[in-house]
Amino acid sequence: MAYFADIERVQYEGVQSKNPYAFKFYNPTQVVAGKTMEEHLRFGMAYWHTLVAGGADPFGVETASRPWGSYTGMDLAKARVEALFELLDKLSIPYFCFHDVDIAPEGDSLREFYNNIDTIVELIEQNMKQTGKKLLWNTANMFSNPRFMHGAASTCNADVYAHAAAQIKKGLEVGKRLGAENYVFWGGREGYETLLNTDYALEQDNMARMFHMAVDYAKEIGFDAQFLIEPKPKEPTKHQYDFDAATAIAFLQKYDLTDHFKLNLEANHATLAGHSFQHELRVARTNGMLGSLDANQGDMLIGWDTDEFPVDLYAATTTMYEVLQNGGIGRGGINFDAKVRRPSYAADDLVIAHIAGMDTFAKGLTTAARLLEDRVFEDFIDKRYSSFREGIGADVVNGKATLSSLAEYALNNDQPRANESGREELLKATLNQYLVTE
Amino acid sequence: MAYFADIERVQYEGVQSKNPYAFKFYNPTQVVAGKTMEEHLRFGMAYWHTLVAGGADPFGVETASRPWGSYTGMDLAKARVEALFELLDKLSIPYFCFHDVDIAPEGDSLREFYNNIDTIVELIEQNMKQTGKKLLWNTANMFSNPRFMHGAASTCNADVYAHAAAQIKKGLEVGKRLGAENYVFWGGREGYETLLNTDYALEQDNMARMFHMAVDYAKEIGFDAQFLIEPKPKEPTKHQYDFDAATAIAFLQKYDLTDHFKLNLEANHATLAGHSFQHELRVARTNGMLGSLDANQGDMLIGWDTDEFPVDLYAATTTMYEVLQNGGIGRGGINFDAKVRRPSYAADDLVIAHIAGMDTFAKGLTTAARLLEDRVFEDFIDKRYSSFREGIGADVVNGKATLSSLAEYALNNDQPRANESGREELLKATLNQYLVTE
Amino acid sequence: MAYFADIERVQYEGVQSKNPYAFKFYNPTQVVAGKTMEEHLRFGMAYWHTLVAGGADPFGVETASRPWGSYTGMDLAKARVEALFELLDKLSIPYFCFHDVDIAPEGDSLREFYNNIDTIVELIEQNMKQTGKKLLWNTANMFSNPRFMHGAASTCNADVYAHAAAQIKKGLEVGKRLGAENYVFWGGREGYETLLNTDYALEQDNMARMFHMAVDYAKEIGFDAQFLIEPKPKEPTKHQYDFDAATAIAFLQKYDLTDHFKLNLEANHATLAGHSFQHELRVARTNGMLGSLDANQGDMLIGWDTDEFPVDLYAATTTMYEVLQNGGIGRGGINFDAKVRRPSYAADDLVIAHIAGMDTFAKGLTTAARLLEDRVFEDFIDKRYSSFREGIGADVVNGKATLSSLAEYALNNDQPRANESGREELLKATLNQYLVTE
Amino acid sequence: MAYFADIERVQYEGVQSKNPYAFKFYNPTQVVAGKTMEEHLRFGMAYWHTLVAGGADPFGVETASRPWGSYTGMDLAKARVEALFELLDKLSIPYFCFHDVDIAPEGDSLREFYNNIDTIVELIEQNMKQTGKKLLWNTANMFSNPRFMHGAASTCNADVYAHAAAQIKKGLEVGKRLGAENYVFWGGREGYETLLNTDYALEQDNMARMFHMAVDYAKEIGFDAQFLIEPKPKEPTKHQYDFDAATAIAFLQKYDLTDHFKLNLEANHATLAGHSFQHELRVARTNGMLGSLDANQGDMLIGWDTDEFPVDLYAATTTMYEVLQNGGIGRGGINFDAKVRRPSYAADDLVIAHIAGMDTFAKGLTTAARLLEDRVFEDFIDKRYSSFREGIGADVVNGKATLSSLAEYALNNDQPRANESGREELLKATLNQYLVTE
Repeated sequence: MAYFADIERVQYEGVQSKNPYAFKFYNPTQVVAGKTMEEHLRFGMAYWHTLVAGGADPFGVETASRPWGSYTGMDLAKARVEALFELLDKLSIPYFCFHDVDIAPEGDSLREFYNNIDTIVELIEQNMKQTGKKLLWNTANMFSNPRFMHGAASTCNADVYAHAAAQIKKGLEVGKRLGAENYVFWGGREGYETLLNTDYALEQDNMARMFHMAVDYAKEIGFDAQFLIEPKPKEPTKHQYDFDAATAIAFLQKYDLTDHFKLNLEANHATLAGHSFQHELRVARTNGMLGSLDANQGDMLIGWDTDEFPVDLYAATTTMYEVLQNGGIGRGGINFDAKVRRPSYAADDLVIAHIAGMDTFAKGLTTAARLLEDRVFEDFIDKRYSSFREGIGADVVNGKATLSSLAEYALNNDQPRANESGREELLKATLNQYLVTE
Repeated sequence: MAYFADIERVQYEGVQSKNPYAFKFYNPTQVVAGKTMEEHLRFGMAYWHTLVAGGADPFGVETASRPWGSYTGMDLAKARVEALFELLDKLSIPYFCFHDVDIAPEGDSLREFYNNIDTIVELIEQNMKQTGKKLLWNTANMFSNPRFMHGAASTCNADVYAHAAAQIKKGLEVGKRLGAENYVFWGGREGYETLLNTDYALEQDNMARMFHMAVDYAKEIGFDAQFLIEPKPKEPTKHQYDFDAATAIAFLQKYDLTDHFKLNLEANHATLAGHSFQHELRVARTNGMLGSLDANQGDMLIGWDTDEFPVDLYAATTTMYEVLQNGGIGRGGINFDAKVRRPSYAADDLVIAHIAGMDTFAKGLTTAARLLEDRVFEDFIDKRYSSFREGIGADVVNGKATLSSLAEYALNNDQPRANESGREELLKATLNQYLVTE
Repeated sequence: MAYFADIERVQYEGVQSKNPYAFKFYNPTQVVAGKTMEEHLRFGMAYWHTLVAGGADPFGVETASRPWGSYTGMDLAKARVEALFELLDKLSIPYFCFHDVDIAPEGDSLREFYNNIDTIVELIEQNMKQTGKKLLWNTANMFSNPRFMHGAASTCNADVYAHAAAQIKKGLEVGKRLGAENYVFWGGREGYETLLNTDYALEQDNMARMFHMAVDYAKEIGFDAQFLIEPKPKEPTKHQYDFDAATAIAFLQKYDLTDHFKLNLEANHATLAGHSFQHELRVARTNGMLGSLDANQGDMLIGWDTDEFPVDLYAATTTMYEVLQNGGIGRGGINFDAKVRRPSYAADDLVIAHIAGMDTFAKGLTTAARLLEDRVFEDFIDKRYSSFREGIGADVVNGKATLSSLAEYALNNDQPRANESGREELLKATLNQYLVTE
Repeated sequence: MAYFADIERVQYEGVQSKNPYAFKFYNPTQVVAGKTMEEHLRFGMAYWHTLVAGGADPFGVETASRPWGSYTGMDLAKARVEALFELLDKLSIPYFCFHDVDIAPEGDSLREFYNNIDTIVELIEQNMKQTGKKLLWNTANMFSNPRFMHGAASTCNADVYAHAAAQIKKGLEVGKRLGAENYVFWGGREGYETLLNTDYALEQDNMARMFHMAVDYAKEIGFDAQFLIEPKPKEPTKHQYDFDAATAIAFLQKYDLTDHFKLNLEANHATLAGHSFQHELRVARTNGMLGSLDANQGDMLIGWDTDEFPVDLYAATTTMYEVLQNGGIGRGGINFDAKVRRPSYAADDLVIAHIAGMDTFAKGLTTAARLLEDRVFEDFIDKRYSSFREGIGADVVNGKATLSSLAEYALNNDQPRANESGREELLKATLNQYLVTE
């Protein structure tokens, strides 16, 4: 453990500290709303962005300077494991997440890939035992390899479908071995480039078949992780089938999969779909489908997935507000599916960026908890909808009303209740006041 | 019938004609793919845009010059009925659609509104009998009146909910009386401005309750029209609950309403939601939910609902392609939910714009029919997915495959089928060739 | 002065106050960076949104409850003047802004409009003398009347052009009489709906001619206000000529108008053009063109001009950072070109919303001032660009370098300076720390 | 010349042909509006997309199957030259375009890069002489290498600036040697990621300095190519300085560079900036700045640069309409800055896609020529603006009018000319009719 030898274990020093390697808001043991920050936030590190990616973009090659950058092949794979556990330790992050291809090279055959995975999983398992770090979720990358150009579970090529199944099977086995709390499905190539060449109905059916097979196999091997679908509207595919939370829910309902899946929601995916992240969270939790979070942020003036580290205190506050209202994030967590900007290429930018993200969520948590404790929005909402708790409104909610009874009420009601102001400006100003005070 | 005395009944004259008051592509009696154009296209005129609206926008007052513009109150309401039937006749449009407030003034009370509606419905009924024109659908406007500032079926004010119910009840009765083939629900204010003041769960439940009450009442009075929900993502409300086809389907599934509702899809609403219109049509027809169409187009560089008359031949062709694949539009139709541009303020722009839209759809129909007759995309797709009709692919489709059987296949399959090119450029170039030739 | 009798003059009470009618951050007399808040912020009230508009949107009529709502015609115009000065007083807002049509009805002729304006200007003048309130800017509304359907200075109708000129002439006279510090040109209809019917070159030339005539006339009557162009990319017009700051500057440069005009920048217009507001401010101040601000905010998920009251502390901070770097806003000010949400229809929402906006800017000011005082970004930037203050970099800046000298340097420079990290995550986290602390 | 041995030289066979390797609309020798199609269209092939790129995207590696794919290093560079000239010949494309890094590997030093360039340029020169193919433009890639992470001409690192200058110097020399008709500057990294760390003013000044040095050096070596700036609003950089045509023009005006530069406009860049391509073309030609075209198209529902081959007949028609109105494209051309979709990975997709693009522009050309010949829009526009050719309108155009004279006219003009309808629907329907007929 020497990749970040210059950096000490990050401590909470509060906002008065000018040390960029110190937490300003995140104090793992601080109790908020009955639990410690660590228990609330269940942070995870994303293997792909932090250990693997190097800052390439569609117009430029990698820029990153990484202490493990000189290794290749399986040596590189092993070095990344070491770096992962060092970073998890220094940042007090309890969880991590990975795709199969993040941890091990694919090699020249599926068999070789399986072997490589086994070797690295062995190493990861040892480190987990020694450190107590845990696997929030794993998944199979079924989008980077050229074979998936037409999709994986939605491919037009049955052999590719079989290969995807083989990756998922291995992924479930790895998840079981490492005690993963969740298993994620993100369908980066499940969708279409053009409807002119697409059998949409067959592709949807085949996706559902794959999900059912995965459910069956997990049961077969006794892997009881929570299954998660991760919605995203587009990129890399022009249109992705799991467009947003509502679309994923429609799919799960249609194919009788709601008992087995929840949603892994990502902030930047929400905004690409035209929604606030709070909206996606609200939709999911109202439907009992809030599973886990991919924490990042997009640039609202940019139309692609920037996966920036989350530093927007408004978004963090409303996110934690929904999580607290949900009774917590359950078996899910807050995974930093976020990458440093391409010009933030130095190794310690990885440390700084995670601190920035963790601090942002910590501040969001405390602000949301205070808003809830004071019932700032709850009291307003209770009063706002009070007409549905009595009289004709209660009849509606209780199922006693009919169009005829309501029409009769309306015809005879000379003094209808006036609407009250929605007070949006007041509520937003109040949110500001909570945000900037302790 | 003298509002458009200068304009004769529009005839088909083909593209060689320079007469702007002539159809260039639309010939009602021409047979395409086994039916006449008139039978395929089932055009409808939108009362609100064509008879009522006057070109106001958020920064400017009305500009329209309308021959019935000097009337007011019930006289205006009656004049519009006359103008409607004159335009339907001159344009050979068989259907029309309206909101309750389009046809009659609301007056000072719900009772007065009912009375006004009855008077005008009487007049409409007479005209329908004389002319054979039909009501494609009607609906209740539950978004313009200030009472609906917080929603109608999703309002926080039970008295407003009752008023909405009374409008729907009357709407169903009017629909039955006039033999409407469909009844539409568009929830312009069903949604939220900010989640900070919104009880999302209650609002969703209350919407479902209203829909169930409507289903029950239609059954009670023997009104067997097809019920339609019209998705739109936003505008006027910041976020609308029926965001897109998939979201509406998720809602209908959750609340056990799929047997009673289909979708009324609008092109401009699709693009505001980030989808092509073809996408929305494909989603709906794959789910057996394609009900009816609101024909218009948006400006892809503009973020609001411009409701332009449809003149994009690509969109018209792919739309009619989906409709033909659906076996036709059924009891639905193609309603021109479109308005002339504000500077196209002259009365005859209404005529020209409908001709433009009808011609566009006629050309789209003939192009789509030829593409289907030649199986241009169908043969390509058949070949593309052929691996799912035999061997391991057939096992997947037939439900025989498991993750284990697929993984074994993949491990032992040394020569997997190569992917074939998706040929998007070729398919699009072929579409162009069909478009510009007869 | 009794329209807001229930509301007392708003006082600074700080964030610990729960009183929604109190300033939490804005304290007019508090000194920040050498000047009082009042001197820095130069707030203005927008006549149109606050005194005139009523909450109508494209799908709904007005909702607003206004104490002066029962008046009509000139009585209404006079009542609005009273309400204006009462609100300015209660909110401690020193400036106001108006379009000609905001203050007086257009009547049936230009002559009548002139007369109505004179009557109301007289009344405004009296109130200004009594209260010390000042006119930040006035302008002519050349977009709402149907005559401007094809534009005003860019119209295809010479008579409309003449009418626009007559409105501007009167506007300049009114500005002079009331001592306006600025005169604004916003071209809501200066642009095109479709290039197919547009003589772009003539329209651009005619706009420039109008601006030159205005400059000449102001000189003629001795009106020395700062002239301002207000960029907006679209809405109501599909494409507006003053798309953004850079486009407006290109126009002013081409037509030799840069000595006479600066820019009135609006936050929501910036985001509609695809820019952050800070970007527009930076472009303007770097070009010496930062004139005045229209303070509001848009919804980044919505594609039209929502003109929300500004409550985003990030935007307020970066805005005031640019203003402070500019040496202040000069003769300009911060005009609340913002409207309460349609459901915030109560009269006191006007008061609350202005407080929300003023507080937001006050907090932005103090945060920006502390960032500048500590040279948080300045020191980083100084170091970042230091290579241009010595050696080959200094040669570039001093104009001594050529392609040949630079190429020779590059060829012979075996140890080029490494890039340093851009540290975006660190800088944004630091901004957060400044934001939430005092 | 054997990479595409299976494909014969592409011939014009008209739309009746089903052969995908045949031109349907493009007939090089066909005369349209006084010139051959070949003379009008001046097609160019983009080295980077067609010879170099392989279908990688942010979530997946390369998919392309290329006959020269087995080579590496300088052998690969030479193979690409052969493939280029084979494709140019088979497709009858007269021009090509490249970045320095497209044609030769960068090697380990600038000196090695120079040498590699020289070797390949020698080979290109030989092929040009043998085939008569010409270089439309070349440019320097100053965005892919990590050194440009902070920009090239706008970098904060003077050594990087020197390196950029060295690349430009070599590029100008190569351009002169190969007789390039243009030299292009696209600033993919000239912009900022965040204003928090950016000295915007210095970066702008330094860019202008670099342009002036390039102008000076071209003069010094007698290279008389047209210089072109290529606007793009964003991607890869968050905000790029040459946002759109107007922004680039503002920059060139400010820094006294308008005599030396025109614009290279790209369709997909236009839409990313919120403009139609026709808009950008109109802005450029009205300002005498229309230099050359990068032909492609974006997906209007997608927020990144998809660089699709152009197959939209509307866009092609309006593009060629502007080009014809401009008196042709001059020394510029129509360069296919377009890439096949990732799943269109087969080598012959390159051929098909270029045919699709060339056919689309050919059809656009003939349609635009017929529209102009019939003066479809011109006559309408002439009449529309006729009021500016007489009376008060002529006074405006001739500079005789003042605000006072116009106001007097307006006050005394009891019968102002009514506005006429803009007829947008009619004009668009007419465009459709021209599009689908010969």
